[in-house]
Amino acid sequence: METSAIGQARPQINAREKVLGRARYAGDLKLAGMLHARLLRAPHAHARIVSVDTSAARALAGVRAVATGADVPDRRWGVGHKQQHVLARGVVRFVGEEVAAVVAETPEIAEEALDLIRVEYEELAPLLDPALSLDPGVPQVHEGGNLSEEINIDRGDVDAAFAGADLIHEETYTTHSQYPGYMEPMATLAEVDGAGRLNVWTSTQSVFLARQRLAEALDRPISSIRVIQPTVGGGFGGKIIEERSSVIAAFLATLVDRPVRLGLSRLDDILSGCFSVPATIRLKMGMTRDGTIVAKEVDILADCGAYAGLAGEVMTVTAMRSDNMQRIRNIRTRARLVYTHTMPRGAFRGFGGAQMSFALNSHMATMAEMLGLDVIELHRKNAIGPGETSVHDWKIGSCELPACLDQVSEAIGWGEKRSRAKAGGVLRRGVGMAAAMHVSGNRTIGNWDGSTILLKVNEDGRAVVHTGESDMGQGAFTMLAQICAETLGIPVAHVTVAAPDTDNSPYCIGTLASRVTINGGMAMVKAAEEARATILAAAAAKLGCDAEDLALVDGVIRSADGAHTAPLAEICRYHIYRHGGEGIYVKGSHDPQTVRFDGDFRGNIAPAYSFAAQAVEVEVDTETGQVRLVETYLSDDCGVAINPLAVHGQSNGAAVQALGWTLYEELHFEGGRVINGNLADYTMATADAVPMMHSMIVEGYEPNGPLGAKGASETAILPGAAAIANAVYDAIGVRITDLPITPEKILAGLAELEEASLA
Amino acid sequence: METSAIGQARPQINAREKVLGRARYAGDLKLAGMLHARLLRAPHAHARIVSVDTSAARALAGVRAVATGADVPDRRWGVGHKQQHVLARGVVRFVGEEVAAVVAETPEIAEEALDLIRVEYEELAPLLDPALSLDPGVPQVHEGGNLSEEINIDRGDVDAAFAGADLIHEETYTTHSQYPGYMEPMATLAEVDGAGRLNVWTSTQSVFLARQRLAEALDRPISSIRVIQPTVGGGFGGKIIEERSSVIAAFLATLVDRPVRLGLSRLDDILSGCFSVPATIRLKMGMTRDGTIVAKEVDILADCGAYAGLAGEVMTVTAMRSDNMQRIRNIRTRARLVYTHTMPRGAFRGFGGAQMSFALNSHMATMAEMLGLDVIELHRKNAIGPGETSVHDWKIGSCELPACLDQVSEAIGWGEKRSRAKAGGVLRRGVGMAAAMHVSGNRTIGNWDGSTILLKVNEDGRAVVHTGESDMGQGAFTMLAQICAETLGIPVAHVTVAAPDTDNSPYCIGTLASRVTINGGMAMVKAAEEARATILAAAAAKLGCDAEDLALVDGVIRSADGAHTAPLAEICRYHIYRHGGEGIYVKGSHDPQTVRFDGDFRGNIAPAYSFAAQAVEVEVDTETGQVRLVETYLSDDCGVAINPLAVHGQSNGAAVQALGWTLYEELHFEGGRVINGNLADYTMATADAVPMMHSMIVEGYEPNGPLGAKGASETAILPGAAAIANAVYDAIGVRITDLPITPEKILAGLAELEEASLA
Repeated sequence: METSAIGQARPQINAREKVLGRARYAGDLKLAGMLHARLLRAPHAHARIVSVDTSAARALAGVRAVATGADVPDRRWGVGHKQQHVLARGVVRFVGEEVAAVVAETPEIAEEALDLIRVEYEELAPLLDPALSLDPGVPQVHEGGNLSEEINIDRGDVDAAFAGADLIHEETYTTHSQYPGYMEPMATLAEVDGAGRLNVWTSTQSVFLARQRLAEALDRPISSIRVIQPTVGGGFGGKIIEERSSVIAAFLATLVDRPVRLGLSRLDDILSGCFSVPATIRLKMGMTRDGTIVAKEVDILADCGAYAGLAGEVMTVTAMRSDNMQRIRNIRTRARLVYTHTMPRGAFRGFGGAQMSFALNSHMATMAEMLGLDVIELHRKNAIGPGETSVHDWKIGSCELPACLDQVSEAIGWGEKRSRAKAGGVLRRGVGMAAAMHVSGNRTIGNWDGSTILLKVNEDGRAVVHTGESDMGQGAFTMLAQICAETLGIPVAHVTVAAPDTDNSPYCIGTLASRVTINGGMAMVKAAEEARATILAAAAAKLGCDAEDLALVDGVIRSADGAHTAPLAEICRYHIYRHGGEGIYVKGSHDPQTVRFDGDFRGNIAPAYSFAAQAVEVEVDTETGQVRLVETYLSDDCGVAINPLAVHGQSNGAAVQALGWTLYEELHFEGGRVINGNLADYTMATADAVPMMHSMIVEGYEPNGPLGAKGASETAILPGAAAIANAVYDAIGVRITDLPITPEKILAGLAELEEASLA
Repeated sequence: METSAIGQARPQINAREKVLGRARYAGDLKLAGMLHARLLRAPHAHARIVSVDTSAARALAGVRAVATGADVPDRRWGVGHKQQHVLARGVVRFVGEEVAAVVAETPEIAEEALDLIRVEYEELAPLLDPALSLDPGVPQVHEGGNLSEEINIDRGDVDAAFAGADLIHEETYTTHSQYPGYMEPMATLAEVDGAGRLNVWTSTQSVFLARQRLAEALDRPISSIRVIQPTVGGGFGGKIIEERSSVIAAFLATLVDRPVRLGLSRLDDILSGCFSVPATIRLKMGMTRDGTIVAKEVDILADCGAYAGLAGEVMTVTAMRSDNMQRIRNIRTRARLVYTHTMPRGAFRGFGGAQMSFALNSHMATMAEMLGLDVIELHRKNAIGPGETSVHDWKIGSCELPACLDQVSEAIGWGEKRSRAKAGGVLRRGVGMAAAMHVSGNRTIGNWDGSTILLKVNEDGRAVVHTGESDMGQGAFTMLAQICAETLGIPVAHVTVAAPDTDNSPYCIGTLASRVTINGGMAMVKAAEEARATILAAAAAKLGCDAEDLALVDGVIRSADGAHTAPLAEICRYHIYRHGGEGIYVKGSHDPQTVRFDGDFRGNIAPAYSFAAQAVEVEVDTETGQVRLVETYLSDDCGVAINPLAVHGQSNGAAVQALGWTLYEELHFEGGRVINGNLADYTMATADAVPMMHSMIVEGYEPNGPLGAKGASETAILPGAAAIANAVYDAIGVRITDLPITPEKILAGLAELEEASLA
């Protein structure tokens, strides 16, 4: 290839249709005879449904159906815990729980009919504070108590190690729940077709997990359902498998036997979206004088809300992922996941890593200061390296964490800014940093983390890629097209990636755990290699030479000596049009050589691990308590960057999402009801809050990844909160341990400092 | 399987959606922002386009575009001869040729705008009579003369063989052109999507040939086009690759950059549809006294109308296919295809076979009478048999022609009815029969006749079949589902056949030449065998036994001794969820061991050949000249009948289409203009013309076919015309040699007879 298809900044292959406004999202789709659905939500955090009177709603002209819990399948669905009905039955467990649904000719009629539904509730005392959830006598969210899951991990000899430590520090950190805030609220179009199959177009990160969810919830054979992925406007974990509105929409389509579209408003989406899992983390760490971490004790209380979903898996990540970033051998971790009468929480970009990253990096900074060490040196000293095996048996392949630390500290001018004299004025600046790690892939579901690509090469030598892995805006299709083009030897523009579709696509898990580049990409490499071998063998037969002498470059097949040459298209046609011919349609499958967690949470779960470091400078207004991010440098260790533009885009997006979580976003509740469930009051970071984002890449080479790549940029959401908290501390000496960092907390911290200095 | 999936009469798997009116045809589809197209057609058979003024049409509110020949790509497209522009340029060559197109917000506006287009023509003398086409000085349809194609075939020593014949008979037969008369007139929906690709939903027999046609006509890369097949309401050859309205619709979509739907009215469809190729056939045949055919001389003049399309291939079939039904060795055939200023003619059910079948069977009946032999005995004496190689090198596998002859003659009471005294009244009855053969597959396009099936087995053990072969109502999908179910060992209801789609489906030729059951079916067998082997290997690994000991029956895997058993779904999940696992997605390809025609038209072009015989009884009203079909028995040699219900349905449909061609359907022209282009005046056979249809099957076993099957029922259109003509002769002694058999011809024939008897 004259120009390599990889490593060059490249607009996404579906950028044009998005920029033109012509990409089709689920909410854009229409089918003839389509009806519109709207949902009635519970106004109470905990109540018994005494009666539901839908007669007035049903009587409204244009209403085609009103469904309640009495109409839905008599089975509970759920990722692990089987807890939810399609619509609430008997009891509601959080404000916003779906109690009834209306299907009508127009959205307006459906809205109107919602107001006509009379639900009589018997209000029950709710459990809202996870800290109380395990106390005796508190309200029970489910039968069997409020403890959803508990994990205990013991490594090494923690007590002995603490006894030998020169410094022990203990602190409790609290993290809050974040709304995924994707551009596209959930939308689903569903219909039962003439053959009786249920076709569902829905905004999802995984068509196959969506199909599985629908089959379970609606009690239908998997193959009687077809899930098709339209363009998806972001997921961030919220559209994996816990999503409820798609289930309701599909159910309604089976009920009315006409196409039904359910598009959530932003308010609806916030009420029913998948928020991140809030965790309170008590962290106790022991170090020797030189900064070597010798012991760690962790206690976590995480809140999954009313239904467990993936929150147990999330908590596991909070509890142990960052252990693998360092050489520590003595760890004791207790983590408990509890129910409350609040909205269900679950998967979120970083999958629980951000919670612990905040605690760990805040703690490291504090202890570095106590020891008189530079926190960057502290990270460097404890950092795991390539070829090492972590405390939980993770085998580290590529690891560029030290280079990431170098890159961000140099970029921000760490040494100079850190040691500068603190200004005493109203506006004070400080720097902070944090480091993090993430998986590239995760061997969980069914002890499998595989991916399959079907690759079709047409008669004109252009390719169609079929995958069940999805592009939710992050650039997965562009990555696949690049790898396909590079491996096969054709221009990227000659590759089309077909939309995931459970009927047409090969079985894949979908987009989660930063698994698509590394696992989907490897499947892509294998499929393209298979296609190339097929093509070169055909070319050799046609040209009368050895396939080994031939290469396919830029769509032309040539022998090394130039004696034989043929356009790819000619060979593709030759592959069909001959005795025993056929179109070129090959498969590549890849399942990494990883090891699922055993019962003790040991196992090399991912084929590769990604690292990142971030350094930020903040400015704190000591009069208002406002914190402003002045500069941020984030360095991502993603192996070979297939598309640097996409890596930068995702890194910057993740850093902004971390910024929002740290400084701006906070749910406010009254009696379990979210009172700021809109984007005016739930304040995601807007342009004026975001400085120039500096995203950098440390390119390594990941031996287990496609063309040296591994997962990129999900790591980038992890260090932000601690980096900012550490910078705030550097600026004003106030250590914030409970997120978000609000002006009130800053001012309270400053007041406390002043009080202490006066004392 | 407790009940075999094959050999049982079975409703088509897509019957439910059709019966419910929920099947989606191209004309049912809508896209947001969709526009509607209408076509302006030439009113002259031959004229120069002097000018086209579209200004008034463009000015009409709601009109989005008006296109003429000046707007279309500057290249000609065509199957073999490159002759057509997307819209006529400079010259029109037949009444109905597409001169301009309007795209508007509603069909009504588009219609109105057509009336506002002013076209100035310079009328030119048309050539309308093919018999004159090669005369000097006649109008030329294209540069280079009016001879489109010519073929000459010489076998053996014809002159010597005629010299040794005891009886020589020569006659000229004329056949007319038939409208395919499918239920669904042509419809296409096309759009350029946000990525710039052209998506086309069109009523087609082959998505891949449609894509090829569009790529050529619109001058686009093949891969930039996606053709999707909605439900198709019949094709009968008219929707293979000559179809023009889909090309125009797709072009218009590229022009306006909004979705465009073009649905033809019945009148439109008749004006632009693909009629069969009319041929005049001079047949001279020599026999020995015992009825052995020793020599044949054939001279054919066929008319392709204004553009050649597939008419050359059709004429080749007319010229030689039925030669292979008999043991004859001495043949001289001359066939010429000429242009006229009439609508293009081309592929039609039977693909030219019906024309010669009428001549040959009429001739056989006449000569049988001359020799005092029973025509059935004459057929039997000359019939080729299994294991024989025909004069054109066709290798006959299964052949049940003698059994077909037995079956129909016994069913109709041939001996008794044939020898009965002729009544002298007004209504006279007679019997007649005819025999025919057809191909099952045809090695033509690119020396390939292959098919590929992709078979996916889901986690619940149910299957999805991907094929590029299409179901146009004939039951191809049901056939594939049955073969899949039978071979794999699951219920037919657990098989879904995905709609052909050039992006998703494996490359296939499509539905023509009765190739889908034999070639697609073989690919299906191979794919299902591959899937079964994959499943049993996985089951053996899981159950700890040998795969050879396992069988998959009715969705359950069992060892012969019953010691090991597992539901299929469990093994399918196991196949995914393990180290190195993947979903089950396998491919089966089949290209038969056939031989494409050489330059002398020799070659075993098909893996199998189908035969049929038909016996009919007619009643002739000697006062009105009306002929009524009283009884018909048609026997089809289709190997193992995968679905007898489908075979009967297709055989009956073909027999009715032959009946229409023979007695009712006739195009009337005035100056090249069709004056009966509607179904009130172009009288297809309606229910009152159709007696109880008796379709019978002689089941053989075709060794080259899937589970013993070969192509079914296309043969059934071939014998009808001659059988009826022979029965008419038997009834009243009038030999009709030019189709259709109209009351006028009957009365003229009776008058001639009377005149002769008086003379």
